[in-house]
Amino acid sequence: MRASIIAIGDEILIGQVLNSNAAYLSTKLHSIGIPVHRMATVPDSEAAILHEFRYSFSRYDVIIATGGLGPTHDDITTKCIAKFFRSGLILNKAALGRIKELFRRRKIPMPEINIQQAMVPKISKALPNKVGTAPGILIEKNKKIFCALPGVPAEMKSISENSLIPYLTARLKRAGKKLSIIKFKTLHTIGIAESKLFEKIGDISKIEMKSRGCEIKIAFLPANFEVRIRISAYSDDPRRADEGIASAVSKLRRKAGDFIYSYDESPIEKVVGDILKKRKLKVSVAESCTGGLIASKITDVSGSSGYFPEGITAYSNKSKIKLLGIKENAMKKYGAVSKHTAIAMAEGIRRRSGADIGLSTTGIAGPTGAVRKKPVGIVWIGYADKECSFAKEFYFTKDRLRNKEIMSKMALELLRRKLLGMQI
Amino acid sequence: MRASIIAIGDEILIGQVLNSNAAYLSTKLHSIGIPVHRMATVPDSEAAILHEFRYSFSRYDVIIATGGLGPTHDDITTKCIAKFFRSGLILNKAALGRIKELFRRRKIPMPEINIQQAMVPKISKALPNKVGTAPGILIEKNKKIFCALPGVPAEMKSISENSLIPYLTARLKRAGKKLSIIKFKTLHTIGIAESKLFEKIGDISKIEMKSRGCEIKIAFLPANFEVRIRISAYSDDPRRADEGIASAVSKLRRKAGDFIYSYDESPIEKVVGDILKKRKLKVSVAESCTGGLIASKITDVSGSSGYFPEGITAYSNKSKIKLLGIKENAMKKYGAVSKHTAIAMAEGIRRRSGADIGLSTTGIAGPTGAVRKKPVGIVWIGYADKECSFAKEFYFTKDRLRNKEIMSKMALELLRRKLLGMQI
Repeated sequence: MRASIIAIGDEILIGQVLNSNAAYLSTKLHSIGIPVHRMATVPDSEAAILHEFRYSFSRYDVIIATGGLGPTHDDITTKCIAKFFRSGLILNKAALGRIKELFRRRKIPMPEINIQQAMVPKISKALPNKVGTAPGILIEKNKKIFCALPGVPAEMKSISENSLIPYLTARLKRAGKKLSIIKFKTLHTIGIAESKLFEKIGDISKIEMKSRGCEIKIAFLPANFEVRIRISAYSDDPRRADEGIASAVSKLRRKAGDFIYSYDESPIEKVVGDILKKRKLKVSVAESCTGGLIASKITDVSGSSGYFPEGITAYSNKSKIKLLGIKENAMKKYGAVSKHTAIAMAEGIRRRSGADIGLSTTGIAGPTGAVRKKPVGIVWIGYADKECSFAKEFYFTKDRLRNKEIMSKMALELLRRKLLGMQI
Repeated sequence: MRASIIAIGDEILIGQVLNSNAAYLSTKLHSIGIPVHRMATVPDSEAAILHEFRYSFSRYDVIIATGGLGPTHDDITTKCIAKFFRSGLILNKAALGRIKELFRRRKIPMPEINIQQAMVPKISKALPNKVGTAPGILIEKNKKIFCALPGVPAEMKSISENSLIPYLTARLKRAGKKLSIIKFKTLHTIGIAESKLFEKIGDISKIEMKSRGCEIKIAFLPANFEVRIRISAYSDDPRRADEGIASAVSKLRRKAGDFIYSYDESPIEKVVGDILKKRKLKVSVAESCTGGLIASKITDVSGSSGYFPEGITAYSNKSKIKLLGIKENAMKKYGAVSKHTAIAMAEGIRRRSGADIGLSTTGIAGPTGAVRKKPVGIVWIGYADKECSFAKEFYFTKDRLRNKEIMSKMALELLRRKLLGMQI
């Protein structure tokens, strides 16, 4: 059983809203073993809608449409469904009752036009909408299942959870189909190039796992110096899928374990926070080019006050000198963007805050500010604890915001690697 | 000329990421008068990709594909393009040079497999990628324009802005086509409820503008205590569309000008930064519950070093006392989350940094940490300059990240209103 999701509406086509409905439905369908093989967005036009219906019916088993069920003139989905299935519209009294009740509760009179939202194709089942006016429309014909849902996300979700997904689940059971289960797991890496990671890992999709009733796929998903590794497991048996994923994870861990910071979608700041908490260590940060973003990331984690006493954004040289005790002569000699300054900042914030660890950044976020031998995108990340101090240099992009983001994450990754005794 | 946008990749199909590329491209295409009539997402499967290519080529004039141009085994877009156009792949030397240069700049060796990203179909033009490895692929055939772009948003955007959109614009001019233009403008507000804003503004879509060859629509788009007001102008004539938008903007400014902080998509930190720069004023920030996010927002703006000397994230009470000179007795008496502490923090950071203005936050970001009379979501925002100090209290949500975001923006909005002499 394979699904197609069709979004109907100009709002998505002109780029005003993202099609979050399709992502939500896809996650739900995958969770019950129905893979989504197609998503399409078409305008509020009868020809376009009917064409997409025809196409999806010719190739997929479950077709879900969202949008165009509202009460106004530009909502034509119901009309198109009636035409496509050659089934006239009839008034669904239960649906009308719910619409009237909704307006009663809101203590406003029901406009006449809402009545037509209770008109559904004769061959359909109306799925109750608990949070809005338009019912869902469910049709089963020629072994295909079609469902139209409202485009308002809260209504789409409510009908999906309460009616559509339970219906599909029961339907799959009734058909006695042993289903293809799909499970996913995503591992996260920072600061290693996609191609390098691929070289380390190779095409592990070739691993022989079909014999154990599970097929595994690996995908590399790069974005701004981070690469996620997604494992997909296809099986008839949920246990086999879990086993397949566990086996793939352990293979990946062996081949690239040092680079994988998260096995459970935790962001780097949470991973580092958990290590600090466990070791009862505290970190303070002194930031220049990252401008407070490391502190902000650390404090995104609830409970971070337990291991993060303070952060200083020392944006001007004066404040580096005054707040962090950097020696003016040394900064003049080596420059604000230098190994020496990065280490001095890390040591300075450690000393003044009394934390176990000091972490620092100094670099050029851009787009301007490059000087000789110091291009935009350079960053020195400094580290200091009671035993040692060091700094490491990285080169990123010319884009200020991308730089701030990846420099901050790289600093946290460096801290993670140091805490875990990995090569830096 | 009508466009179709095709996203290639399992990542979107399984609901892991939203198709933001399609929304971005659609906005850009509309802005140059090319309406998008179809969006489709297909899996990393040759059959599915080729079928969608065939379908889109049979009905649309501009076809843009995103994704699948990476260096690993699951990236098959280039291969599909070569097959579809029956054009072999050749090495594009300029593209290879740029890939090599990218690795050189980052000072890491280029893995062998990146070379294949410089292989493009013979009949294509390679569009330079300034921020990543895969070039865009542009093909013009039978009066249809096809373009494949990387799926990484920053790379897709960079190639679109630098190559694709200028190319399409020139192409339209050459064809001498008169197009239906749709222009959009979005105004931004913070901290005023949608219904309140609507009461102030009313339904200005009723304004009679059709007679001047332009139709105007207004939409309110609320999200996390911010409301955007979107103006859409429909016309055959770009000048008329601009006039329509200008007229709508001036009406909105008259009715709700104090609440609109941005008329040009500038974020609040840019708007405030511009005012500070113009007035030659400097601001420093002392943050508790916002944990460095205000500093990070301020330093998102290039040139902020000119008006932002330093920020302190005083997360522990000890660091509030030590770094900001808050009196321990007073903090015990009034509490860390109080008007008194907010003002003392703003005065403290102003004094110690020598800036003209001190800005502070102290509150409870959540999800835990509520105390009697101080619920999660409370924040005191403090302000101090040489003439006056004050603090104002706000209540937001139970969600930590949403709270940090809106508290930071509200602090910057408060600073903006104070600088402009508006009611606070």
